[in-house]
Amino acid sequence: MTGDVSQPFAAGLSRRLAAFVHRSRWEDVPEPVRAHAMRAIFNGFGTALGGSSDQAVLRLTKSLAPFSAGENATVIGHAQRRDALTAAFLNAAAMNVFDFDDTHAGTIIHPTAPVAPVVLALAETRPTSGAELLHAFTLGVEVACRIGNAVSPGHYDRGWHITSTCGIFGAAVAAAKLLKLGENEILWALGNASAQASGLVETLGFMAKSTGVGNAARGGLISALMAQCGVEGPPQPLEGPRGFLKVCSDHPRPELIEGGLGRDWEILRTMFKPYPCGVVLNPVIDACLAARATPNFSANQIAEVVVRGAPLLKARADRPEVTTGREAQVSAQHAVAVSLLRGHAGAEEFSDAAVNDPLVRGLRAKVRPVEIDANTAVEAAHVSIRFADGSSLVVSEKAATGSLARPMSDSALREKFAALARYGCPTLGVAPLARTLWTLADQKNSGDLMVLARPSSGVVRE
Amino acid sequence: MTGDVSQPFAAGLSRRLAAFVHRSRWEDVPEPVRAHAMRAIFNGFGTALGGSSDQAVLRLTKSLAPFSAGENATVIGHAQRRDALTAAFLNAAAMNVFDFDDTHAGTIIHPTAPVAPVVLALAETRPTSGAELLHAFTLGVEVACRIGNAVSPGHYDRGWHITSTCGIFGAAVAAAKLLKLGENEILWALGNASAQASGLVETLGFMAKSTGVGNAARGGLISALMAQCGVEGPPQPLEGPRGFLKVCSDHPRPELIEGGLGRDWEILRTMFKPYPCGVVLNPVIDACLAARATPNFSANQIAEVVVRGAPLLKARADRPEVTTGREAQVSAQHAVAVSLLRGHAGAEEFSDAAVNDPLVRGLRAKVRPVEIDANTAVEAAHVSIRFADGSSLVVSEKAATGSLARPMSDSALREKFAALARYGCPTLGVAPLARTLWTLADQKNSGDLMVLARPSSGVVRE
Repeated sequence: MTGDVSQPFAAGLSRRLAAFVHRSRWEDVPEPVRAHAMRAIFNGFGTALGGSSDQAVLRLTKSLAPFSAGENATVIGHAQRRDALTAAFLNAAAMNVFDFDDTHAGTIIHPTAPVAPVVLALAETRPTSGAELLHAFTLGVEVACRIGNAVSPGHYDRGWHITSTCGIFGAAVAAAKLLKLGENEILWALGNASAQASGLVETLGFMAKSTGVGNAARGGLISALMAQCGVEGPPQPLEGPRGFLKVCSDHPRPELIEGGLGRDWEILRTMFKPYPCGVVLNPVIDACLAARATPNFSANQIAEVVVRGAPLLKARADRPEVTTGREAQVSAQHAVAVSLLRGHAGAEEFSDAAVNDPLVRGLRAKVRPVEIDANTAVEAAHVSIRFADGSSLVVSEKAATGSLARPMSDSALREKFAALARYGCPTLGVAPLARTLWTLADQKNSGDLMVLARPSSGVVRE
Repeated sequence: MTGDVSQPFAAGLSRRLAAFVHRSRWEDVPEPVRAHAMRAIFNGFGTALGGSSDQAVLRLTKSLAPFSAGENATVIGHAQRRDALTAAFLNAAAMNVFDFDDTHAGTIIHPTAPVAPVVLALAETRPTSGAELLHAFTLGVEVACRIGNAVSPGHYDRGWHITSTCGIFGAAVAAAKLLKLGENEILWALGNASAQASGLVETLGFMAKSTGVGNAARGGLISALMAQCGVEGPPQPLEGPRGFLKVCSDHPRPELIEGGLGRDWEILRTMFKPYPCGVVLNPVIDACLAARATPNFSANQIAEVVVRGAPLLKARADRPEVTTGREAQVSAQHAVAVSLLRGHAGAEEFSDAAVNDPLVRGLRAKVRPVEIDANTAVEAAHVSIRFADGSSLVVSEKAATGSLARPMSDSALREKFAALARYGCPTLGVAPLARTLWTLADQKNSGDLMVLARPSSGVVRE
């Protein structure tokens, strides 16, 4: 326990955070931050399209359908609209279901999933310019990631699913900003969010993970709406003696919430993933795709593959035996085999079908257990391939695509978007949607774009 | 951290708990447990009537109104019906808003608030006998309190609002039982609940407390409905390495969840409060009411009052200065003054109006700071009154009304119910409702009773 009665712990932190959100103006947000915010929403929209037909999302949709009041808000990739709370829940679940959404360096929060669906849903229910939407979204991501910084790394290590637990605060302030709430009400929104902050790492790999992420978005939105209706919260929901920071962290560092606030923007530390699998696999896949692109490469001549990388690579992804797409997302053996065979590593390559493809299975068996090289950084890896004729090929990746050092290019982001849409929502023509999202900052009424995310009503998705 | 990979921690606990809920039959539940379950719902229904017009409940009602799909379920004391999720939320908030609902000895969970509203709402949407409803409710209370036992006392001490965090599991299994889910689905309901378990002590004393309690009921209900739709959870939501017990407790005792399960029923350890204030004040009020009932007692002749009691009494309720009803709930000085003056200690006596009554204020100033007697148990207290003529009166209470040793009588419970209804919902004639609840076990279709909890539609409560 940090602090005691005689030494107040970060007294007034929550109110100052609320005041920052209240007084922030879009003009104060630097251009690179604005541009990154657009990309984050673009990327998240794509992962939502990709996830929109996943079984977890469809089952959650079915369970929530009887409790949606009216049809104001779009569920991305679905013809049927829902109320704003339900749409926020389902879009958050879909954005994050493959863990293919953005990742904040340091906390590993996926911040767009809990925050973007809230501002998108609100924008459909009241006139909201693209700039207003991006501004509220940026503030939400900022608050979620800064609270995450203050409780990391112990919070996630202990078992909190940080995307959900911290995401709800971001969702709450983003909604509060779009609703134009006052400082007190923003503080109450944080308080109502603190009463609902939840999510366990134990649920990862199961559909209940999406229950937590959806709940973060929905809970954040209703927290702000409650505050708007006068539901008062405590003055110190974050820093109080029984507030979020002390309860949900063994060593909270509240100073990380305020240091550089409004100057250093956390959204610039979010990364977009090129491949729908654990980030530790990014450099491995990069190396395999580079190997496959060499002249005269022939996958069926491979005798053995050795992967060397950071200790975390082995800890997280040394998994020779896989039976489902979900497991394949954390299998170096599968990632190597499928990317060497197909020259591609998209959603299809991490599906159940790809796992059971006899060719993939055959090559997967030739990939040795991961070898540790303590000097290799987590964004680097080495892949050595020995062929049947005795020749060999070694490819090293120093900074994987999608890392802070080598972010995905705009064209790669656009390709990812299109591929995800084809995968999850093949009946939707996405070119107009992609164009509109890419120019979001210039849109007069951002809610209008959501019609482009709905396939024709003939498609049944449940 | 308890346990490691080589020593599995309570492996299979969640599944065995689900199996217990699944196979439990009403015939297996002993008659005293059944009778206590009825009293718990009766008492909770009364506190919901009392809380139904509280500002926190009204503001929450307003915020949720646009998101209620249809009118299937009754909000106790309100004319307007809502959907089952919304009604569960609001009834849980109302039951607990004054902390006048039941308390489980040991954990201080208020178990009826998160659980009963869920079974009441479901009973309005499908035929449910009174016995079925009581059975599901009893199982829900059992699960909530046993999980609470396993994380107590550290969980609450650290800052978890245990009524909400553990209540959601009870709500989930109660709903799952009424929905007749299978063992797997009950396990998934626990998993979906684990992803949403939340609530902070920091919110106590503020409306956001009710956000957490309402969310526990709503979250439990939707967790079961999600499980019914196939939303799968992890196999070990409670005992897993990143499951609820290890994440939300520094020293979990999983054995307390299973020991005596199905034989020793936790609901028998729940207490009904006679007065709408902190339980530590119960013996003080008992003593004051006994003093006032002595012949020739005259409150306006009092010169000074001294209260002696357990250390916890002083720690929690030595509060001479109070300005609101909410503060008065934890003020020994107020409790003494108002009960000596009025011979009664109901909701009216802990209202803002009572706090500002000049007579109460005058006598409150004559009540000395609480004195500690380390040998006095928390359910006991001594009140010494010195009169202007030099005479004095000492009353000692050994076991307060409402303690396990001296539970409230049936007639006292009925009086409490009627008084709360008059206080919170004066236009409702409650005699038929009270009669029906008291014979709940014999009702063929328990959902029918909810019509008796709705005042005529002319009353506007928002």
